[in-house]
Parts: sequence; structure tokens; C-alpha cells
Amino acid sequence: MHFTKMEALGNDFVVVDALRQRPHLPAEAVRALADRRRGIGFDQLLLAEPPAHLGADVRYRIFNADGSEVEHCGNGVRCLARFLHDSGLAPGPRLRIETEGRITETRLEDDGQVAVDMGAPALEPGRIPLRAAERAAAYRLATSRGEQEIAAVSMGNPHAVLRVDAVDTAPVAQLGPEIERHPRFPNGVNVGFMERVERGRIRLRVFERGVGETPACGTGACAAVVAGRLAGRLDATVAVELTGGTLVVHWPGEGRAVWMTGPARTVFRGEVELPGPAGR
Amino acid sequence: MHFTKMEALGNDFVVVDALRQRPHLPAEAVRALADRRRGIGFDQLLLAEPPAHLGADVRYRIFNADGSEVEHCGNGVRCLARFLHDSGLAPGPRLRIETEGRITETRLEDDGQVAVDMGAPALEPGRIPLRAAERAAAYRLATSRGEQEIAAVSMGNPHAVLRVDAVDTAPVAQLGPEIERHPRFPNGVNVGFMERVERGRIRLRVFERGVGETPACGTGACAAVVAGRLAGRLDATVAVELTGGTLVVHWPGEGRAVWMTGPARTVFRGEVELPGPAGR
Repeated sequence: MHFTKMEALGNDFVVVDALRQRPHLPAEAVRALADRRRGIGFDQLLLAEPPAHLGADVRYRIFNADGSEVEHCGNGVRCLARFLHDSGLAPGPRLRIETEGRITETRLEDDGQVAVDMGAPALEPGRIPLRAAERAAAYRLATSRGEQEIAAVSMGNPHAVLRVDAVDTAPVAQLGPEIERHPRFPNGVNVGFMERVERGRIRLRVFERGVGETPACGTGACAAVVAGRLAGRLDATVAVELTGGTLVVHWPGEGRAVWMTGPARTVFRGEVELPGPAGR
Repeated sequence: MHFTKMEALGNDFVVVDALRQRPHLPAEAVRALADRRRGIGFDQLLLAEPPAHLGADVRYRIFNADGSEVEHCGNGVRCLARFLHDSGLAPGPRLRIETEGRITETRLEDDGQVAVDMGAPALEPGRIPLRAAERAAAYRLATSRGEQEIAAVSMGNPHAVLRVDAVDTAPVAQLGPEIERHPRFPNGVNVGFMERVERGRIRLRVFERGVGETPACGTGACAAVVAGRLAGRLDATVAVELTGGTLVVHWPGEGRAVWMTGPARTVFRGEVELPGPAGR
């Protein structure tokens, strides 16, 4: 099986073209390939397949290292798009990528970065979900460090965003897990700590729900820009400096989609023998 | 640069053919390739080069993930030999492999495993080095768990071997570091805990000097068989079950070389772009 190892902001992916080859990849094979010593190693394996729906250019499926099939992520979809462009499989700079029956649009930029349509944010408390009487620009949460003011945004997953003076000294390890499981967020929440550098630049650390602090949370970057923009503190286009690298988030305003632009890089190409009946 | 990712008993290697290509690999490039997310990832990078000495088929150099050049290891030389055989570069089943001016012989077995000449053991205390009046089959060491009886063998590096009833419950974590730095071993020592299953089979755990317990120490396997054989408890050919897998050690007796046989497996082949002036 031919594959391409790719990387985006410190997340790594094995991208497999299942358009021109038909690999047999049961969960057991995915787990074996994920082993960083006895296999290839990756955070996620991305499988590009023929689309199931009209209007899509390609379908993709995402597998975690444990073999389970999961939701798509911003870093992964950029790598997939870049792979399709580099392989000459893309019809043009724009792609319509199907995942779990939903279509995500991507656009190849002149500098090789990839922009992704992350959808419109949801701001109603019931859609986040957040326990609150009505929608507000800021909500007050009781914490062990006193009352904290947060914004709440859903980018398909729930986010709380805190404004901090300096992201380097922000109490991420203390407030992250506490807000993540705060009773006002019945499904838990991702927690972003945002320092505004200027109207077009923020620094951000994100404590991801169920994971802990991560180097590059794409939906967290989008949620922070939405929150900062609704508070009147940010322009429509903002560079978001995360621990793992920089993403550019563009949001014209309410009712519109958020576009996120970032790097995606090929590390190497390889060929691996799969076990089983349809190994190649 | 073309490369082959290989694996032996849980150690992984990137093997680079510098006979048919001329890669430019400064320490910085080695470090970048060693990164398991942003590079290929490996325990060691093995570079096959034209020999510098008459009588050698190939020369090889070994780099750790930090870019430093290091001594050769049994798992690595098996992978190198297997790579040369699989690539059609070996003149026959036997190879003479030069490393650091020394020549190591290898032999490809019918089942694809590789046997390596590990040299003759040294048993004189001064050559191990061990502080002792004279050579003995067993030495008594004072430890926090009372007096322990050990054998002492050099396989190019020093080894202490303890006999235990059951390797699974052996006090590796306690006695390993204590014996490793025992004042009677002025250069420190690797510590093996050996359970004899039968005359042709032992189980072994090794606490490596400066590292801790490791899954597959080749010189430790050889030292344990030498010790057990000198004590009259083992045959000339012994299967050594390590945590990472099984090696077969063959030692006819004093004055003769130890041969170690084990697996070496290609995981995948790949091609990576190197930075710099002579990237390909």
C-alpha cells in the first residue's frame, strides 16, 4: 500500500489514497500501522475514497491510532486537501470533501497553505450546550479562583473562551479541568485562554475536553476569534498563535462561516506491505 | 533520499543506502528525521557506505536520534545485513561489515533471520573491568538485599549475571541500579537476571548501564549464556527469551566467538526530501 506521511502544527497523519488502490484496512491493520516502532506511526490515518454523495469531490474517513473511526479535525482535512492537490487528483484549488455525510469546503492558497470552511458558529446557550437563561456576550462562572467571565461558542463542539493578560502565565492547568467539567456545561467544554496582542493577532492556549492542553486546536482558534470579534476587540482576519504554530482565522460576522487557514506539509512518501487477503 | 524502516525485537531503525545514493546527513538532518511526528522516527539511523578497509563488504555508521554517532548494536547490524540481502547488494549469505575499524561477520539463515559474530567474551577481571583478586566462576557482592552471587563477563561492554528462580518477580528495579553502580565495577555494569528454563532455554531481563531495563539487550543475552555455560548449566545453543522477543545464542566454549541469531524485519520503504545543498 502506498501512503504519504504528513504533518500540520505538530499533528501527524498517514494519508492513504483509496481512489487508485484498494487497501484492506480493518481496525487491526490500522492499529499495527499506528505503532511508532513496528509500524509507521501517526495521530490519525486519513483514507481518501470515492464520494458517496453528489456534489462532493472526495470522501474521507478518519481513524485514530486505536483503530476507531472518529470525527474530522481541521489539521487533518488540510493535510488531505494538500495531498489531493499534490497528487494531481484535485480538479482545481477548491475541493468539496465529504465526511460523515457532511461536506467541508477547502481552498488551496497561493503559498501552499489550505483554508477550510469550519461552518458558522452557534451562540444560543441550548446549542452549545450551556445552562443559561438567555444568550449573552459574557457569562459568569464560579471557580476556585473566583468568578470568571467567559464567552461560549459552539464550532460543532462546545468552547469556553477566557480573556487573559498573558497566555504564558495563564492558569490553564488549574482552570482548564475545572471549567471543562463545570456543571453549567452539561456535555463538558473545551477551554481557551486568549491574549489579544492587537486587533489582528491573538495568542491562545486550549485545554481540550477529555484530553488536556494540546498544541493546536483548530476549533478552539475559531471559537476564540468569534468570541473576541463579538466583544468588538478583533478584526475580521486574525492570526492565532498556538503552541504548535499559527493559524489564520477569518470571520465576517454573525450568520457567516468561519474560514481557517494553516499549513500542511508532506514529510515523506512510502510503501508498506499489509497483511491479509487484499494487502495491495 | 530513499530509506527503509526496519525493526528488530522492538528497536526501530532507518536504514539508508549511501552506496547507490549520496545523502547529505549532518547531525541537524539526523535529528529532524528522528522526530516521530515531523520526521520518520527511529531509535537509530544506519548508514551503509563503501568500506574503508580491505576485506570488508560494506562499512556502516550508526547515529542516535540526537544526531550523535555511536557504537554498533546487535539489533542494528542484523537489520543492516537483512537490508543488504533484500536489496541484492550482498555477494552471498555471509557479510563482513566494518564499523569503527572493526569487522563484524554476519550470516543470513534460511528462515530470514540473521546470525552475528559477537566476538569472544573476556573473563579476566581486569578486562571487564571488575575489582577482584583473581578470575572466578562467581563473585560475591554486598547489596541491600544481602550478598548476591554474580558472574562477570565482558562482551565488549561489562555484564554482571545473576541467577534467579523466576524472572517475572526478579528484583530488577531494586538490584539493577544498585549493581550497575557497585564500587567493584569501576566503569559501571549491565545487569542481567537469568532464569534457566532448561539446558537450551533461558528467560532474561537486562538492566542496561545508563539506560534502565530494556526489552532486548543482545550483548546481555550473550553474557548470560556464557555465564550459564561456564557454570555447566547450559548447552552450546540456547534460546534466550527477552521481553522484546527471542534470540538464539551459540557459544562452543572458551576462546571461541559467540554467535547471536535473531529476527530483522522491513516495516516499510520510503522516500523523503532532505533540506540542504545535496538533498538527493
